[in-house]
Amino acid sequence: MSNNFLVRGVQPSDFAQWKSLWDGYNAFYGREGKTALPDAITKITWSRFFDGYEPMHALVVERSGTLLGLAHLLFHRSTISLESTCYLQDLFTHETARGEGVGRALIEEVCRYAKHAGCQKVYWQTHKTNATAMRLYDKVADKSGFLVYRKTL
Amino acid sequence: MSNNFLVRGVQPSDFAQWKSLWDGYNAFYGREGKTALPDAITKITWSRFFDGYEPMHALVVERSGTLLGLAHLLFHRSTISLESTCYLQDLFTHETARGEGVGRALIEEVCRYAKHAGCQKVYWQTHKTNATAMRLYDKVADKSGFLVYRKTL
Amino acid sequence: MSNNFLVRGVQPSDFAQWKSLWDGYNAFYGREGKTALPDAITKITWSRFFDGYEPMHALVVERSGTLLGLAHLLFHRSTISLESTCYLQDLFTHETARGEGVGRALIEEVCRYAKHAGCQKVYWQTHKTNATAMRLYDKVADKSGFLVYRKTL
Amino acid sequence: MSNNFLVRGVQPSDFAQWKSLWDGYNAFYGREGKTALPDAITKITWSRFFDGYEPMHALVVERSGTLLGLAHLLFHRSTISLESTCYLQDLFTHETARGEGVGRALIEEVCRYAKHAGCQKVYWQTHKTNATAMRLYDKVADKSGFLVYRKTL
Repeated sequence: MSNNFLVRGVQPSDFAQWKSLWDGYNAFYGREGKTALPDAITKITWSRFFDGYEPMHALVVERSGTLLGLAHLLFHRSTISLESTCYLQDLFTHETARGEGVGRALIEEVCRYAKHAGCQKVYWQTHKTNATAMRLYDKVADKSGFLVYRKTL
Repeated sequence: MSNNFLVRGVQPSDFAQWKSLWDGYNAFYGREGKTALPDAITKITWSRFFDGYEPMHALVVERSGTLLGLAHLLFHRSTISLESTCYLQDLFTHETARGEGVGRALIEEVCRYAKHAGCQKVYWQTHKTNATAMRLYDKVADKSGFLVYRKTL
Repeated sequence: MSNNFLVRGVQPSDFAQWKSLWDGYNAFYGREGKTALPDAITKITWSRFFDGYEPMHALVVERSGTLLGLAHLLFHRSTISLESTCYLQDLFTHETARGEGVGRALIEEVCRYAKHAGCQKVYWQTHKTNATAMRLYDKVADKSGFLVYRKTL
Repeated sequence: MSNNFLVRGVQPSDFAQWKSLWDGYNAFYGREGKTALPDAITKITWSRFFDGYEPMHALVVERSGTLLGLAHLLFHRSTISLESTCYLQDLFTHETARGEGVGRALIEEVCRYAKHAGCQKVYWQTHKTNATAMRLYDKVADKSGFLVYRKTL
């Protein structure tokens, strides 16, 4: 099942298809219409994927030239390790490709990528109401028991 | 109450007192004895606080020359903003200074610091069983509803 | 002489005056008219000065509310040191304020700033025909004997 | 001639051979014996090549399992470009492999690498007395006319 698609790094020529997935992902989090993510942010985030100075990377899943999903990761410092930590910030599978292992394949590739980059840990966040996502996450990772607090400045 | 102590950036001469707080913080998370944080990590983390290339900073609370608490923050990229995000990784108040507003003062200073550094958001994590901490966090920030998953590589 | 002006970090409200100095500096290097630096670059460079994740900083010299000069520095890694290195990329004194010690004061402040940020060295470049600048540089620093090669990709 | 060796990214298993080249390179710049580069620096520099958060990379030239040369590059910000700049900090060919195109092949690969990482420019430094190196550099790049000043803090 997982063999009929390819997980790979994003390329400049993927922009249109990646943008479509990115819009779908943002809409899922309510960033659409009047609250849509500004284009200026999408533009700079896209440019950062191809900038060797920026520790931010994108992976996509492709089948027959069609992108089915995306994962965005970034490396950052940690006070409790020599190495950097990998934060899997975004993960999305197109609705027409759910249940085929796209999300799992992306997580696995993010882990390989992070390990190759010297990290000992990958982490991500999910909303406590997202039962669908947690069914997958509970199989491939550990629920840490930590909750996230945020303060807008 | 909050006026009889000073919140300030850490200085090289603070090492001994900071180390004592840092050990207490790590012990709280089970990093003591056989599972203690290696000294090599403490050493490099300390050096990063004073390295202009590293986006990692430490604040401390001082009263009459005694350090009462610490906060460590770092800036990292985000795919959904132009600016970097501030992660408040560590927060600790010495047990003899609890209930005096040290933690709240540190969070407020981290927010000021992050705002000055151009961030629009500060976030941190706490364990779902840490009711004491959450009493404070619920007053000063928003419980995002997000849970943290981790995978050790 | 050097006491009637102030060397300080740049502030958001300095933009208009800083921009005027920056244009003068760029014109000196031929970046004016048809070959002017694109506004998009000026805009992002300016934003980086105020972004805590970016190791890029700007200092200015002010007298009676008027900016007389600027210095831009950045920290980057080096293979031969634990600490980062400080590159003083831009230095400029307004033509009406030459000979008053503005450039020297900026270099001295860059050095203090870099030392505080843990660097052991500051370096900069100047064109071999810039005899005026070298008269100052030969007093305050060492001509390393190294030449710069460049390849446009 | 240039086809009987391979230019590639360094790997953890290359350490012993890389270290030998690195020592030779450092000796060329007088960092040997009493003024040798401390081991702690070599250790951290080596670790940075394999850390996804660090914008520092190493390339080597290999022939029949033997390393013939090395190049170390790093990306850093620039005030006059959106993209980062590539600094080729170290370049070295083992004395037994001089004149075979090792240095040129390394420079070409650094340029490809930097272009792929979004840079528009690669630069490096050489001492004005290093006529041998400049014979190569004058063929593959532009002598910028800029001199380097340094100030030890």
